[in-house]
Amino acid sequence: MHKKEIIIILDAMGGDHAPDEIIKGAGLALEENKNLKIILVGKKKLLNEKLFEFKIKRDLIEIVNADEIITNSDQPAKAMKNKKDSSLIRALELLKEKRADGFVSAGNTGAVLLCSSVILKRIANITRPALATHLPNLKSFSVLIDSGANVDCKANMIEQFAKMGYIYMKNVMKINEPKVALLNIGLEAEKGNMLAKESYKILSELNINFVGNIEARDVPFGIADVIVCDGFVGNVIIKHTEGLAQGIFNLLKHEIKKNIWCKLGGMMLKSGLVNIKKRFDYSEVGGVQLLGLESVVIKAHGSSDSRAIKNAIKKCVLFIESDVARKIQEVCE
Amino acid sequence: MHKKEIIIILDAMGGDHAPDEIIKGAGLALEENKNLKIILVGKKKLLNEKLFEFKIKRDLIEIVNADEIITNSDQPAKAMKNKKDSSLIRALELLKEKRADGFVSAGNTGAVLLCSSVILKRIANITRPALATHLPNLKSFSVLIDSGANVDCKANMIEQFAKMGYIYMKNVMKINEPKVALLNIGLEAEKGNMLAKESYKILSELNINFVGNIEARDVPFGIADVIVCDGFVGNVIIKHTEGLAQGIFNLLKHEIKKNIWCKLGGMMLKSGLVNIKKRFDYSEVGGVQLLGLESVVIKAHGSSDSRAIKNAIKKCVLFIESDVARKIQEVCE
Repeated sequence: MHKKEIIIILDAMGGDHAPDEIIKGAGLALEENKNLKIILVGKKKLLNEKLFEFKIKRDLIEIVNADEIITNSDQPAKAMKNKKDSSLIRALELLKEKRADGFVSAGNTGAVLLCSSVILKRIANITRPALATHLPNLKSFSVLIDSGANVDCKANMIEQFAKMGYIYMKNVMKINEPKVALLNIGLEAEKGNMLAKESYKILSELNINFVGNIEARDVPFGIADVIVCDGFVGNVIIKHTEGLAQGIFNLLKHEIKKNIWCKLGGMMLKSGLVNIKKRFDYSEVGGVQLLGLESVVIKAHGSSDSRAIKNAIKKCVLFIESDVARKIQEVCE
Repeated sequence: MHKKEIIIILDAMGGDHAPDEIIKGAGLALEENKNLKIILVGKKKLLNEKLFEFKIKRDLIEIVNADEIITNSDQPAKAMKNKKDSSLIRALELLKEKRADGFVSAGNTGAVLLCSSVILKRIANITRPALATHLPNLKSFSVLIDSGANVDCKANMIEQFAKMGYIYMKNVMKINEPKVALLNIGLEAEKGNMLAKESYKILSELNINFVGNIEARDVPFGIADVIVCDGFVGNVIIKHTEGLAQGIFNLLKHEIKKNIWCKLGGMMLKSGLVNIKKRFDYSEVGGVQLLGLESVVIKAHGSSDSRAIKNAIKKCVLFIESDVARKIQEVCE
């Protein structure tokens, strides 16, 4: 295991609770991991005040100034063009200059993905970086790749997604022999559109525990650890999970309000219902990561509190230590 | 309104409860609609015995013999090749010869779709017939087209789906000014893959109440009456609805069994839970139809009882009387 110093850059201004919870999260991470150093990027004066206010030790923290903030309401492409002095873009530039080993942001997802893809270097032989999302299922979660970064794909890109997803689940999520499946509209090899048929052939010949096609009806049952598809279909699955779960819970709420007995029943089942709702709230499950870059970029949830930021930093360290980028490069040669 | 005689062909051997419930359904339909005649296709001797057993009047029923049956376990392509004397293929041949105005089957969905597409004539200017499925939502249902017949589409096919879906909802489902939406991964016109972007442009210029893009997360909320996409994505949505609803109900069942209070709560909420489950069981909502053929083909649910068959016949009559095929042809000229 690496025991050398690890430097993580934090987008101190990104997220619903920035900068307070980001800074507190940095403090917690530094207490837990003695090999860690953190670079906070954001409004220097404000960050200094906050570090003082929260009594966080300064010796392992560096601050790099950035005067602008990309908010959730910013359009990613416009923000990238117009907010060159934002904490996100400054942070990615530092990462590009190899001033650090990894980067964590809880900011605007679209902007994090777009700016990372443009500013950072791709792994050799990876056509385009892909978005890997933890998709909740009845057992735990699958990683769905690509879930929105590449909406028009060729079969060789699906092949890369499969390899990256396999390596991610094996090395970062520590799943022994992750099952890789191709999202398709039937189980048989000859099913699907041209992309799916061609991808099936390629995937069958790889050494990555390809278990065949998975139909969308089986996705929620957790029979695959890695699910690959183009980013259009992947994005549809992610958003449909969110919407349908929400829709069913709206109906449940409505039924619970119907009469006094239903209300009572709802109260008795409340903790169970909350559990289920949480499970299918994909933002709770583990967020998204961009795979295929030489650098490690972790997108934490927008609503992250200090504990969530600490965990995102921990995941970033795990990513760095598991040397995923190099392993992806090897497998994709 | 047409008050002339309407002749409907019934696949007497297709469906989980064939031929009994099919025959009884024919009897109910004939009692209700005095302009109706029915041709039953199937094993003649058996059907004669059943008509006698169920005391159904013979004067408006004709029987055409077919010795084979395509079952649910038959592979559609193989069945079409090898079971030329099946009730399904014989029935479609009669329809092709214009011996009747419409056709109802509760048999193997894949086989009904494949054989219909091959044997029957397409409407002029329709590239390929498409599958329209009633997809449940919080308000009632949307029609999702294409939901699996065409897995590789060009934008002009999406255009045809939109026109056919619009005409279907307006004329058969009697929705005043149906809202047509394009399934996409963002609301803005420039979002999506190449197919979606190109389709958006075309749809914007049509006179069919195009309301723009719909994201998968909004699909369950019933904001569009017609949702168009390629058959791969459509099939993913249909099957994901089925699987995710089932998955959430499995979790609910599990929570309800946790302790005595949860069990009690579950009992109090039971009818509500059953309502919701039924609503998202898409097989309950209204089945599937193939649009784009000159003939009217109604696919009833495999589990149809006599009442469901009667309703499918009624829908078939509505289809015929609303002259959908001609209207589609006009709009697609």
